[in-house]
Amino acid sequence: MCLSSWVLIISLPKPSLQDNTADVDRLLQAIRQQTGAGHVTCHYRLMKKLPDILRASDYRVRCVLFKNAAGWFIVDVEPVTDARPVLGLAVDLGTTRVVIRLIDLISGGNLAENSFDNPQIAIGPDILTRIHDADQPGGIARIQELIISEINLQAERICRSVNLRADDIYLVTVSGNTAMTHLFLGLEPRWLIREPYIPVTNQPDVVCAADVGIRIHPSGQIFVFPNIGSYFGGDLISGILFSGLNRREETAMLVDVGTNAEVVLGNHSWMIACAGAAGPALEGGVTQMGMMAGPGVIDRVTIDPLDFTVDCHTIEDMPPRGICGSGLIDLAAQLFLSGMIDIRGKLVPGRCKDRFYLENGIPAFILVSAAQSETGCNLVITQADLDSLLRSKAAMFTILETLTGTVGLAPQDIPTFYIAGTFGYFINPVSAITIGMIPDMPLTRYQTLGNSSLEGASMLLKDPTKMDEIGMIQKNITYMELNVNMDFMNRFSAAKFIPHTHTGLFPSVRQWEG
Amino acid sequence: MCLSSWVLIISLPKPSLQDNTADVDRLLQAIRQQTGAGHVTCHYRLMKKLPDILRASDYRVRCVLFKNAAGWFIVDVEPVTDARPVLGLAVDLGTTRVVIRLIDLISGGNLAENSFDNPQIAIGPDILTRIHDADQPGGIARIQELIISEINLQAERICRSVNLRADDIYLVTVSGNTAMTHLFLGLEPRWLIREPYIPVTNQPDVVCAADVGIRIHPSGQIFVFPNIGSYFGGDLISGILFSGLNRREETAMLVDVGTNAEVVLGNHSWMIACAGAAGPALEGGVTQMGMMAGPGVIDRVTIDPLDFTVDCHTIEDMPPRGICGSGLIDLAAQLFLSGMIDIRGKLVPGRCKDRFYLENGIPAFILVSAAQSETGCNLVITQADLDSLLRSKAAMFTILETLTGTVGLAPQDIPTFYIAGTFGYFINPVSAITIGMIPDMPLTRYQTLGNSSLEGASMLLKDPTKMDEIGMIQKNITYMELNVNMDFMNRFSAAKFIPHTHTGLFPSVRQWEG
Repeated sequence: MCLSSWVLIISLPKPSLQDNTADVDRLLQAIRQQTGAGHVTCHYRLMKKLPDILRASDYRVRCVLFKNAAGWFIVDVEPVTDARPVLGLAVDLGTTRVVIRLIDLISGGNLAENSFDNPQIAIGPDILTRIHDADQPGGIARIQELIISEINLQAERICRSVNLRADDIYLVTVSGNTAMTHLFLGLEPRWLIREPYIPVTNQPDVVCAADVGIRIHPSGQIFVFPNIGSYFGGDLISGILFSGLNRREETAMLVDVGTNAEVVLGNHSWMIACAGAAGPALEGGVTQMGMMAGPGVIDRVTIDPLDFTVDCHTIEDMPPRGICGSGLIDLAAQLFLSGMIDIRGKLVPGRCKDRFYLENGIPAFILVSAAQSETGCNLVITQADLDSLLRSKAAMFTILETLTGTVGLAPQDIPTFYIAGTFGYFINPVSAITIGMIPDMPLTRYQTLGNSSLEGASMLLKDPTKMDEIGMIQKNITYMELNVNMDFMNRFSAAKFIPHTHTGLFPSVRQWEG
Repeated sequence: MCLSSWVLIISLPKPSLQDNTADVDRLLQAIRQQTGAGHVTCHYRLMKKLPDILRASDYRVRCVLFKNAAGWFIVDVEPVTDARPVLGLAVDLGTTRVVIRLIDLISGGNLAENSFDNPQIAIGPDILTRIHDADQPGGIARIQELIISEINLQAERICRSVNLRADDIYLVTVSGNTAMTHLFLGLEPRWLIREPYIPVTNQPDVVCAADVGIRIHPSGQIFVFPNIGSYFGGDLISGILFSGLNRREETAMLVDVGTNAEVVLGNHSWMIACAGAAGPALEGGVTQMGMMAGPGVIDRVTIDPLDFTVDCHTIEDMPPRGICGSGLIDLAAQLFLSGMIDIRGKLVPGRCKDRFYLENGIPAFILVSAAQSETGCNLVITQADLDSLLRSKAAMFTILETLTGTVGLAPQDIPTFYIAGTFGYFINPVSAITIGMIPDMPLTRYQTLGNSSLEGASMLLKDPTKMDEIGMIQKNITYMELNVNMDFMNRFSAAKFIPHTHTGLFPSVRQWEG
């Protein structure tokens, strides 16, 4: 029998001369019976308070349980009459944004959610800068302290927003990439980015919140999702868990796109994964007007194929001030379909008309005129931006092709294609197919997962059986180093065209025939 | 394959692009291979320092390992070049005396040994007084602090005596009765002495030294021997381990006599145990001149059967000031053999002559005259003292008879009879047989174990395989509640005679036929 929640209400048989089992042993025995666990551990700290609790509660107690790699253990035990809530906090520890969700561990309900910038941005927006900074004396502790104190602040705040207290958070699940979880735990990140790219651990497992400096219940525990290596993090494991890829009989693919593209292909019996630089063009922040999604950021673009009118949709319908990844993909697709760029992605001046100009000799396209932009300047995409985008999409497609190829499949043969991450949430799959970034297949096969890292972290808080599943995912994934050989480079070159040199791969894409 | 010591020297394969296992995982893998352990845990604290240690030591490290009920774990890891010693401390936590032994965990050698009074004596000499005192507000913490601070002081001192440092003690093993280990850990002792006699735990297992307040290495761990119940403590489990009773094919008996008589009967496939009040007469401190063994205390008595000269031997040959348990048993045996007491244990005035007198109407025997005693007073044993001793020895024999009876044996059929504890160390078995306290059998079958509690605690520090053995001992012992019914009382009455009403049980005992 399995537990349906980490909180167990349990009535113990009372001691008698016929049954004089010790208090702790009595409790552990009952827990073993109810959970089917082979072994359960009770911390010394709890042994000290147990006799009073058992006798004050007439042997009816509420236990918060958790499980680490060594087995089940009791996090806390209180009389069953204790009316205090038992909370959990799921943390999606992004390099840029952190999202937290407060969960009622008894009912499994979501209580509140909030997101905030990763304060380590102050050191550097990217992982490399932060890891180099950690090399300074005291650097690791300082950079860890940034994220820990911010999470403490935000945990307090999210609890207060629903009239609860962070003291009542017993379990925290943290899902992030390998660098972010290393920095969260204060583990030396130095060797992650140096050949042969060695993490301190692939299985941080469960640590005491107090040891990390997270201020929740004094007995609170933190589970940090395991990683597969320096470039395949716990956020992916969490995403796989949420997608259910590891539970399905049918083979599926899961793609998470950020600075890196991380790709998993598999089913309940096998999984292969790889990761590769898909290029930062998709993340915003690199193209001249690129930025993270936010109010006033262009997230959808339409170009009328007849009169070439450009229509930009902005988030919250605010005056436009930049463009995010999904907007950029939309734009490229629309430019291609209207013939404003050719199959090499080059701007076609004749088609672009007065939106075309040369910026320091480089061709550029005015998306929004100064008069209409929030900034009072033209919002422009240059040929360099477009080239960068095409390299990113080509890398993405080549990675997909390579991975599917290793098991004798073509990308378009995959029955289900999960797109993880916020990027996947906003992307228009038709546009992504149009530029040849993802395989041309019926849209019903695409499933966007939203913030799968947060969702996976939440799942574990709601369902104890997921702990073993996470272990199995980590164990079952075969990580494939991307071999960037001649074959890869040939595929990559072919994929740099829109949608591809081999247009038969993208039968649904038909460029404006002008 | 098994470890021959808790300290493991290990060379790790160095990371490469072909083997980019994480640091912690690399170490755990190597340890699993060398120990055959299914699972090994690395504490978060060690994860933080591991990357530097591995690279500074060229991947050759020295690990201190330990094992708790959940499995193996790393206590500490240092470069193999670290020349600091790795020490262990075995503690025999007696109610009255505490004995500690410092052990080199690498060589397994004994480095030093010391004993001191249990400072809780200041609260009360006996367990009951201490447990009642613990009921006062703050009582448990105060009584725990007494023993903890004394052990800290003594650990410092024993290390200094051999030019070592307590910081280098990584492992401590503590063997004591259930009440003493509860008070050592600060666990509520209240329910130990109240029906139905419930310990907080029968398996304190391994706790962090820092959590208990023991000042050794910051990562130091303490193993507290498990108990079977309130009246069958870890000192007995430790004693069984040392005796090897649990490993032998042939059935043996182990007896530990203090205020309680604890008895185990069994072999490698089964063990039954029971404990009963054997009476404090054997411990010293109850008879008028009774006391703990020490300089000037009478530990051997001979009475010439012809001229009735009484010869008292004292410890360190100092002038006599009292008598200890073994002296008392000698005295009773000699009084009986010389006809000065009869088979009921009553003083025979005609035989005792001028050593006999009435003290407030109660018959008494002058063992040492005021002129010869250190105190300047007569050292006297009264009829009440003798009655008390006979009740104790009768209880002892009845317990042995009852326990052996449950498996269809007579006490004298047992091939090996271990006598544990300091009592056993000093006792003259011939005298104990003479008064009918222990079965009449060839002396070669008796084996005194000395301080078996300390020896068992030491064994665990020297041999990791003993950890599982301890678990098996605890699991395999069937504890039998002594059923004090009519049958028991009949046996007890018969055993109150010297040596027994059924003299056929003690063929070797022949009273002086005068």
